[in-house]
Amino acid sequence: MREMKSIDGSGGLTGANELEAMDKLFDRLFPITRSIAGPGVRQTLAILGEQVPLDVFGVPTGTRVFDWEIPREWHIEEAWIRDEEGRTVVDFRNHNLHVINFSTAVDRVMTLEELKPHLHTIPHMPDAIPYVTSYYKERWGFCLSHRQLEQLRPGSYHVCIRSKHVPGELNFGQAVLPGESEEEVLISTYICHPSMANNELSGPITAAFLYNRLNKWEKRRFTYRFVWLPETIGSIAYLSMFGDELKRKLVAGLVLTCLGGEAGLHYKKSRRGNAPLDRLIEHLFAREIPGRTVPFTPTHGSDERQYNSPGFNLPVGQINRTLTPGFAGYHTSLDTKESMGIDKLLQSVNEIERILAAFEHDGFYINTQPFGEVKLDRHGLYPDMNSRMTARHSNNQLEDGRDQLKRILTILNYADGEHRLHEIADKCNSSVTNLVPLVNLLMEKGLLRGPYSEPRGLFD
Amino acid sequence: MREMKSIDGSGGLTGANELEAMDKLFDRLFPITRSIAGPGVRQTLAILGEQVPLDVFGVPTGTRVFDWEIPREWHIEEAWIRDEEGRTVVDFRNHNLHVINFSTAVDRVMTLEELKPHLHTIPHMPDAIPYVTSYYKERWGFCLSHRQLEQLRPGSYHVCIRSKHVPGELNFGQAVLPGESEEEVLISTYICHPSMANNELSGPITAAFLYNRLNKWEKRRFTYRFVWLPETIGSIAYLSMFGDELKRKLVAGLVLTCLGGEAGLHYKKSRRGNAPLDRLIEHLFAREIPGRTVPFTPTHGSDERQYNSPGFNLPVGQINRTLTPGFAGYHTSLDTKESMGIDKLLQSVNEIERILAAFEHDGFYINTQPFGEVKLDRHGLYPDMNSRMTARHSNNQLEDGRDQLKRILTILNYADGEHRLHEIADKCNSSVTNLVPLVNLLMEKGLLRGPYSEPRGLFD
Amino acid sequence: MREMKSIDGSGGLTGANELEAMDKLFDRLFPITRSIAGPGVRQTLAILGEQVPLDVFGVPTGTRVFDWEIPREWHIEEAWIRDEEGRTVVDFRNHNLHVINFSTAVDRVMTLEELKPHLHTIPHMPDAIPYVTSYYKERWGFCLSHRQLEQLRPGSYHVCIRSKHVPGELNFGQAVLPGESEEEVLISTYICHPSMANNELSGPITAAFLYNRLNKWEKRRFTYRFVWLPETIGSIAYLSMFGDELKRKLVAGLVLTCLGGEAGLHYKKSRRGNAPLDRLIEHLFAREIPGRTVPFTPTHGSDERQYNSPGFNLPVGQINRTLTPGFAGYHTSLDTKESMGIDKLLQSVNEIERILAAFEHDGFYINTQPFGEVKLDRHGLYPDMNSRMTARHSNNQLEDGRDQLKRILTILNYADGEHRLHEIADKCNSSVTNLVPLVNLLMEKGLLRGPYSEPRGLFD
Repeated sequence: MREMKSIDGSGGLTGANELEAMDKLFDRLFPITRSIAGPGVRQTLAILGEQVPLDVFGVPTGTRVFDWEIPREWHIEEAWIRDEEGRTVVDFRNHNLHVINFSTAVDRVMTLEELKPHLHTIPHMPDAIPYVTSYYKERWGFCLSHRQLEQLRPGSYHVCIRSKHVPGELNFGQAVLPGESEEEVLISTYICHPSMANNELSGPITAAFLYNRLNKWEKRRFTYRFVWLPETIGSIAYLSMFGDELKRKLVAGLVLTCLGGEAGLHYKKSRRGNAPLDRLIEHLFAREIPGRTVPFTPTHGSDERQYNSPGFNLPVGQINRTLTPGFAGYHTSLDTKESMGIDKLLQSVNEIERILAAFEHDGFYINTQPFGEVKLDRHGLYPDMNSRMTARHSNNQLEDGRDQLKRILTILNYADGEHRLHEIADKCNSSVTNLVPLVNLLMEKGLLRGPYSEPRGLFD
Repeated sequence: MREMKSIDGSGGLTGANELEAMDKLFDRLFPITRSIAGPGVRQTLAILGEQVPLDVFGVPTGTRVFDWEIPREWHIEEAWIRDEEGRTVVDFRNHNLHVINFSTAVDRVMTLEELKPHLHTIPHMPDAIPYVTSYYKERWGFCLSHRQLEQLRPGSYHVCIRSKHVPGELNFGQAVLPGESEEEVLISTYICHPSMANNELSGPITAAFLYNRLNKWEKRRFTYRFVWLPETIGSIAYLSMFGDELKRKLVAGLVLTCLGGEAGLHYKKSRRGNAPLDRLIEHLFAREIPGRTVPFTPTHGSDERQYNSPGFNLPVGQINRTLTPGFAGYHTSLDTKESMGIDKLLQSVNEIERILAAFEHDGFYINTQPFGEVKLDRHGLYPDMNSRMTARHSNNQLEDGRDQLKRILTILNYADGEHRLHEIADKCNSSVTNLVPLVNLLMEKGLLRGPYSEPRGLFD
Repeated sequence: MREMKSIDGSGGLTGANELEAMDKLFDRLFPITRSIAGPGVRQTLAILGEQVPLDVFGVPTGTRVFDWEIPREWHIEEAWIRDEEGRTVVDFRNHNLHVINFSTAVDRVMTLEELKPHLHTIPHMPDAIPYVTSYYKERWGFCLSHRQLEQLRPGSYHVCIRSKHVPGELNFGQAVLPGESEEEVLISTYICHPSMANNELSGPITAAFLYNRLNKWEKRRFTYRFVWLPETIGSIAYLSMFGDELKRKLVAGLVLTCLGGEAGLHYKKSRRGNAPLDRLIEHLFAREIPGRTVPFTPTHGSDERQYNSPGFNLPVGQINRTLTPGFAGYHTSLDTKESMGIDKLLQSVNEIERILAAFEHDGFYINTQPFGEVKLDRHGLYPDMNSRMTARHSNNQLEDGRDQLKRILTILNYADGEHRLHEIADKCNSSVTNLVPLVNLLMEKGLLRGPYSEPRGLFD
C-alpha cells in the first residue's frame, strides 16, 4: 500500500517491526487510569514521549478557557464494594471502568436499594461494563456488568471510593516537525479514556507512528504540529493558548480517532466543507484509497467540534476507520485490543501518510512557457515523429508513453495558477499521486513552478 | 394548524367567529360593481376600512404613471337589451358581468345580426357569463351565457348602456403595521373585479384578516404594509408613488390572489428567485406546510408582474391556493362563494400568518461565545453526566432531550452571521418553527444575538 | 436549413451553385504537396485568394516563436524506390503520402532488410498509405500500403528522395470582414496536410465559403477575422504576431476541422467552458441545430490547443462534423472526397452561418421602460380587450398572438442588462433565433437597447 518511496527515503521501522512496536506501545498504555486531568495523562505523555520528542504543557486548575474552566485533577487510590460477608463484589483494580470517571469519594455502608442509584449497567449488554464520566458535577458511582448487578442480593454493602480532586493542571503534549513553509498541518488526538482500545488508543498510537513517518520525509513543504490532549476540555485549553496562531498558520488538520476498525477510512469534513484537504480527500477516496466522506456536524464526534467552533472555524476534519458494523462495544469494557486490529492501525498510518504526501503536492502550479504549447521534444518529452501507428499499434510501453504525453499536456495547460493539482488529475481521469512524478519531471525541466497554496496569476 | 401561540397572544376573533365574520364581509363586498376606477373601488375600500384602519389614496385621471396614464372613472347606471316585445333579455342589474367592464354608452335599436359582434359568450361553457374588460379602447358590449344567446331570435333589439367615463381618480387603500425595524413586508391584493369570488374577494378578505392577526402579535420585527388596489394600473400607480420607498425598505412581499381553493398553497417566487422569503417558503413547504413553489414568470399572474418589473425587481412573490383541478369558472360568473370555501380563506390566513411568523425569526444569528463549544451545563442546558445509557436506554423524554441538545449544538455552531435560521434548521433536519423556542431560550441565556437581516461577521 | 434571410439579403452563390464551386475548389486543392512550410502552402493560399481577398504573411525561417522556431521550407522534387529490375515500386508522383512529410534526401542502394525500417505501413489496413510527418527530427522514409510492402521481394533497392530544406518562410493567409464593433470573431483553419479530404480540405473550403456568406450580410456587429495557416506551428506563429491583439479584441472563435462527415455538428468548447459562444452553441444544439458539445481538452484536437494555451486562454472552440462511426481512414490515403461529402461542407457552412447569425444578437439588452410593465397597446403590441375567450377559443393565429405576447413580456422583463438573449429564449422555452424578429420589433419601437457584449446596469 505504501508507495511514497520518493518521499520516505529513510530506513526507519516498517512492516512487521512497526506492527510489533505498536503492539508493545498499546500494551503499556492500555492499563493506565486516564481521566481529563491527573496522573494518568502525565503517565501516558511520558510513554508517548519515548516515541516522539514531546513538549508537555500544563494549564493550572481554575484557569478560565473561553466558556470553560480547567478542573481539579482526579487522583484515585481504590474503589470497591463489599458485601455483608466482606467479599469484594466490584473492584476498580479489576477494571478502570468500574468507577465513574472523576467520581467523588465515598466510604459508607448502605442497603442494596440505597446503592442501586449509584450503579450503572447496560441491561441489554449484560457482559459489558459501561464507561461513565461525571467531570463537572460532583457525584459518586460504580459501573459494572449487568450480570454482576443481577447477582447482588439484598442486604447491606460497604462502598468505598478513595479519590481526591486536587488543584493541579491539565496536561497535553505537542511535537512539531518543521517544514519549508510556516503553513501548518495539525494532527490532533486524545488521551483521556482509560482502558479502551479503538475509542482511545488507536488515535494516539497512530499519531505517534505517523509522526515518525513524516520525520523521515526528505523534505516537508508544510510544518506538522502533532498534539495529544484530553478530549474537549483539552482542545479548548489548547485553543485558548494556540488558537490565534492556528488561525494564522493552519492550512489543514485531522483529528484522529477510532482508527482500528476493519472498514475503509471515513472522513468527516471540516465545517467549511471545501477546505483544500476536504477536497483532496474526496478526490483520493474516489480514485486511490477506499473511503468515504461525510459532512461536518457539531452534534457528535471529537475535538473537531472545538476546532470548528464558529470563532475558530479551522480547516480541520476528523478521520476514523469504522469498526465492523454491529460492533456495540463503544464506550464499554468490550472495546479491547482483540475487538480491533493493530494491523489496522498500521494501515491507518500508511493511508494517512499517503493522504498527507499527496497534500504536499496538491497546490497551484504555473506553466513557465504558457504561450502556445510547450515544444515537448525540445525538452526531451515527446516522440519526434508523428505517426498514426505510434498511437495505435504501439506495444504497451508506447501506449503508456501516449498516456504520459496526454497527462503532460493537461498539466501544462491547467498549470495556470487557478487549478489545484487534484483538479488537474481529475481532468486526466487519474489520481493526483500518479501525476506527482510528471510534475517533478516538469519542475526539473524548468517548465513548472509551484506548488503554491493560493491561486495566483500566471505572471505573479 | 395555528401554533404560533407565543406570538399571537391576543384574544381577537378566532376559529368560528373569524369564519362568520369573513362570510359576512364576503356577502357585503360581492355585489359591488368594481372596476379599475370609479365608485365601486371606493365602496369596497369603505367596507374594508371598517375592518382595517385604511389610508385611502387617489391619483387623478390623466396622471402619467410610467408608461401608463390614469384613466377616467367609469360610472354605470344601467345596461340592458330588450327584444321587440319589450322584454328585457339581458340586464346588468341581474349580474355585474353582463356588461363589458368599462363599456362606453349606447342606446340604439339594431338587428340581432348587428348586435351579435357586441355579445360575448363562452360556447363550451353554456351557463357561464364571461368577464370581459376593455379599459383602454372605447368599445361597448354585453356578456351573457351562451344559452341566453341561443335563445335570442332574429329581430330587432333595443340596447342601452347608460355609462359615463368621467375625470376623477384611481383609488387604493393602505394600512401600515409598524414594527421594530424600518424593514418592510408588503402584502398586496386587488379590488377591481366585480362579483367574483376566488379571483377577487379571496385576496382582499384574506389580507384584511391577516392584518388583524399581525396587529395582535406582541411584537413585530418588520413593518407590514398592506395595500388593496386595482390590479395592474393600481400597482403601477402605487409604484409611481411608493416605488422608491419600497426599493429602500422592502425585504419581502406577497401578492395575495385566489386563496379560496381546496389545494395546498402555491407560491410563485420573486424574480430574484432566491430572495429571503422565497427560500424560507421553499423550506416551510418541504417541512411544515403543504405547498409547492414555481419560478417567477412575467407572462401571467397578478401585480407581482409590476413589483418584479426590471426597474423595481422587488422581492415580492405571489401566493395562491389553487382550486380543485378542472374548475373552469375562472373569469366567469361561475366563480362564486359556493365554488370556493370561506374556510379555505381562514386556512390561508392561518398558513400565511405562520409563514410570516417564521420569517420574523429567519435571520442571521451570532453566537456570543464562539470559541470552542459553549459549556452547556454552566447555562443549565446540558445533562451533567455523560453516559452511554442516557442516549440509548432513555425514555422518550430523554430522547427528546438528546434531540434538543443536538439542535442547540447545531444552532450555536452555525450562529456565525452567515447562515439564516432556516438553513440551520435544514442542518437539524427540522422545520425552522421547531427551532424558534430554542433560539428564544439561547437569546435569554445571552448566548445568541439576532436576528439580523444581512450576513455579518462574528464580531461586527 | 438556412432561414437567416433578414441577414443574408445578397444574391450570391447558393444551393447547387455553391456546391459546384466547392467541388471545383476541392479538386484544385487536393493534389498540392502541402507541408508546414514551402511552396505547397503558398500554392494553396494563392488558390484560396481567388475566393477570398487574402493578406498573405510570411515568418522567416529561424524566427523564435515562443517555445518554437520557424523551420526551413521543404522542397521536394521526386521520391521513389526501384527494384533490381529498375521497376519503380513506390513513387511519390502517384501519391503525396508516399514520402514522409518533411523527409530528408537520400539516394542509395540497399537491401530490403536495410530499407524496411524506413518503410511505414498499417498492417491492419492493408490498402491505406499512412500519413507520417517528421518536422523536427531529420529522418527519411516512405509510406506505402501494407499490400505493397508484402509484394517486395528480398533483394537490393534503389531509394531516392530529392528534397531540400532551405531557409524561407512560414506562410499564412488572413481576411478580415469589418463590423460595427472592434470586437472580433476568429475563424481559423489549417492548410498543411497534403491530399487528404476531411482532415484538411473540409476546413479551408468551409471557411472560404463562410467568409463569402458573412460578406453578404447587410450589417455585421462583430469584425470577423479568418485565418488559413499550417497547423500548430502556424497558429503559434500567428499568435506570436497577433496574440496580444486577439486578447484585447476576441469575443469568440472557431477552429474549423473535419467538416465533411455525415453526423451532426460536434463542438469542443473553449477552455473557459462558459464563454459566450460556448453557451450559445449549447443552447442552439438543444433547440435548433442537431449537435453535441464536449468539454475542452488539451490532449488532442487542432489549433484550439494553441489558442487555449494558458497564456492566451482565448474563447476559441473547435467545430467539426464527425464522420460515419467506424470510418478508419483518418490520416491515411483513404481520407478522400468520396469518403466524405461536399454537400456536408455546404451544410456546415449553413449551420455555422446560422450559429454566427444568432451570436450577433446574443448579447445583453436594456428595457427602456423598466418601471412596471410596458403598456403594450400604446405601442401597437397588445390586444386591447382582455377576454378569456381570446386565449382559449382563438384560432391558431390568435394562439400564436398569445405566444408572441408572452415572449414580448418575457423579453422586456429580462432585458435588464444581466441576461443574454439565449437565456431569455430559454425562459420562453424557445430558440434564440425565434426571438430575433421580436427583438428587432421592440428595438424599432424604442423599447429595447442593445445588444451589449457585457452585462450592464439598467441605467448605464
